[in-house]
Amino acid sequence: MKFSNFFIPTLKESPSDVKMRSHDLMIRSGMIRQETSGIYSWLPLGFRVLKKIINKIELFHDIDNVNQILMPTIQSSEIWKTSERYDTYGKEMLRITDRNNKDLLYGPTNEEMITVIGKQYIKSYKSLPRKFYHIQSKFRDEIRPRFGVMRAREFIMKDAYSFDLDETNGEITYHDFFNLYLKIFNNLDIPVVPVRAPSGEIGGNLSHEFHLIVESGESEIFIKDDVFNKKYDDLSLKELINLESYTDDYFKKINEKSGFNSFKSIELGHIFLFGSKYSDSFNFVVDSHEGKFKPFMGSYGIGVSRIPAAVIEYSNDSNGIIWPKNISPFMVHLINLLHDDTECLEFCEKIYKDLIKKKIEVIYDDRSESPGKKFSDADLIGIPVQIICGKAFKKHNEVSLIHRANKKETYFKSENILNSLIDILGENV
Amino acid sequence: MKFSNFFIPTLKESPSDVKMRSHDLMIRSGMIRQETSGIYSWLPLGFRVLKKIINKIELFHDIDNVNQILMPTIQSSEIWKTSERYDTYGKEMLRITDRNNKDLLYGPTNEEMITVIGKQYIKSYKSLPRKFYHIQSKFRDEIRPRFGVMRAREFIMKDAYSFDLDETNGEITYHDFFNLYLKIFNNLDIPVVPVRAPSGEIGGNLSHEFHLIVESGESEIFIKDDVFNKKYDDLSLKELINLESYTDDYFKKINEKSGFNSFKSIELGHIFLFGSKYSDSFNFVVDSHEGKFKPFMGSYGIGVSRIPAAVIEYSNDSNGIIWPKNISPFMVHLINLLHDDTECLEFCEKIYKDLIKKKIEVIYDDRSESPGKKFSDADLIGIPVQIICGKAFKKHNEVSLIHRANKKETYFKSENILNSLIDILGENV
Repeated sequence: MKFSNFFIPTLKESPSDVKMRSHDLMIRSGMIRQETSGIYSWLPLGFRVLKKIINKIELFHDIDNVNQILMPTIQSSEIWKTSERYDTYGKEMLRITDRNNKDLLYGPTNEEMITVIGKQYIKSYKSLPRKFYHIQSKFRDEIRPRFGVMRAREFIMKDAYSFDLDETNGEITYHDFFNLYLKIFNNLDIPVVPVRAPSGEIGGNLSHEFHLIVESGESEIFIKDDVFNKKYDDLSLKELINLESYTDDYFKKINEKSGFNSFKSIELGHIFLFGSKYSDSFNFVVDSHEGKFKPFMGSYGIGVSRIPAAVIEYSNDSNGIIWPKNISPFMVHLINLLHDDTECLEFCEKIYKDLIKKKIEVIYDDRSESPGKKFSDADLIGIPVQIICGKAFKKHNEVSLIHRANKKETYFKSENILNSLIDILGENV
Repeated sequence: MKFSNFFIPTLKESPSDVKMRSHDLMIRSGMIRQETSGIYSWLPLGFRVLKKIINKIELFHDIDNVNQILMPTIQSSEIWKTSERYDTYGKEMLRITDRNNKDLLYGPTNEEMITVIGKQYIKSYKSLPRKFYHIQSKFRDEIRPRFGVMRAREFIMKDAYSFDLDETNGEITYHDFFNLYLKIFNNLDIPVVPVRAPSGEIGGNLSHEFHLIVESGESEIFIKDDVFNKKYDDLSLKELINLESYTDDYFKKINEKSGFNSFKSIELGHIFLFGSKYSDSFNFVVDSHEGKFKPFMGSYGIGVSRIPAAVIEYSNDSNGIIWPKNISPFMVHLINLLHDDTECLEFCEKIYKDLIKKKIEVIYDDRSESPGKKFSDADLIGIPVQIICGKAFKKHNEVSLIHRANKKETYFKSENILNSLIDILGENV
């Protein structure tokens, strides 16, 4: 992609009310734009990151036979009255009256709707288990939206829901989702820590959150020393139920508090096994040989649009973003410093086309801007590898390769640069 | 995908208020579910079709360097007051008050927002032309939502917007979008007819719609005899401006009405070149060598969530849907009639895995249902090719291949079926 075709409107400064590093960097790198309080547009660069995340989430859900659906953003108030959450949800729920004075709402979550869907179609134990997910806009009317897309009012969530015959099967499904989440975050280069959580609003009693530890995080988690370096992907169901890592709320209820460290963190995922709370409310009954069952349910959320901000919060320096490879909008940032020079231009065009052929994602700065502007934009945008074509190309037929993370620069003969890039990025090609 | 893993809840009957064939078939094939008036969930099979359409739309927009973004569904009322559409838009606009008594709305379209975005970042002629698109939920509070997703209140739209320096460049961009739309619909196997349209609400004076001719359509278009079989993809700008095909509204204004035929149709796309209407309202000014310009704008919509319904309306028989290949959720429907027979089961499992290896999308009916139920579901769902493994397999080692469109059945030796399928579906593999 060329800058001339791909719009990345970098800015020198953020508005003065921007307090968080990731918020500042997302605004200045032209990833997002605030439209009104807590409501954002995703510009081309930001959307590209979002889509990488979504593609990865879809891939792993599909592999696990979680069926993708799409529920609407607008819901009828009736189902929320049935579950008795319409009044209790409070002012965070965006309530709407349509032209016929019918009470609607912008869904903050979808337990009610999925239960009604399940109830219509699932009549027999033979149809169980069933797992559904969708990726969709949600709205929660936060009293104090802040930190950009980290705590926005309109945001994108992946929410999944499961139906099982009974608690035993429900726990198996819950365990599968626990491992699915670890796999997804691992594949996005995000080192999350799972912690036990209270289930609160949604109900039930088995719940975990997935946190990224960063100093600027709004959450706090408590971890027992010997758990911190643990690998979580081979935990048995019993081990995950008894995990000695806790959210703030849960930790308050723990008696034995010695030996725990606290960390500031960002919550990226949340899973619940809440049982028959909603199948009870909606009288959702399934037939089996042993009689009638109320299906055992769970819900599983990922804060999709919060992920880019969390990753930036975790991976940046004074010059800008440092994207991990698996989530980076591009792999290579090609910079032509001599855009008026025919040889340099021809070389850049050739390497640009070669990279595309090799399916290495490249953003090519073909603008007529100063070297200083091009360098600072490249560091701000944070693509893992920068390729610079400038004076050394004219003098010695050399281009340089800079690793964004450590700013280490190496010169290569221009005819060798493509193979060197393939060597470096090989795993991702 | 196996029925045991992919949820297709077919129904015997639709609710009695379902009047349109596509609405009935989408409900009965388990593609969609009504949640409340004019608001639908897309179930796994329906979402799969939707995603095929979205992927194709994204592919061709990306090739044309239209940058994908994502604007929020909720907008501030202020920008609509600036363009003076807040009052004129009427009751179709879903108006919302948030917890701080701020007036918001669920966007019915995005001309205002994209203009504000353009105004912030585009300062110089050097940044032009720019083209953006997004695929997002829209809400229009129809007084009489009907025909399922054909005329829903919440729906998915692809809307694109362009900024050009002046009218001449704007017309070039408009012409490009006209051809882009033909390419997209052609690649979805949808034979649309472009017709000239009045621009109405959005303003400006160059506008075309893309219609699919079907008897049950709500729209009416007027086409001059000699234009009907025309190829539209090599029209010059002048030819498309003077196209003798019209929407109903436009036709009323035509003086010479002889020689026209009228057709019932469904509107699937709509493009506008409206000029500086919104850059005027928002005082969006760009510098150039020749002074200051108000960018010339256009907008370009596709009714994404209406497309599956339109295609079904156009392609079905008394038994169900007949999917054209390029939009079909799967290519092959594998039916095991003897699900208790070990040999039959082993054969079906093998052919299922072979098809996946060959990247031929397959839905495999592995349920313990009667042959009658399996056949009627297969015809209802409408996958182009059905493979039947039953008594002939046991007796003669033969399986049959049925073309859904014409119900023509051919028997093949079981060892030849894979290659026969590859021959038949070859173009799509």
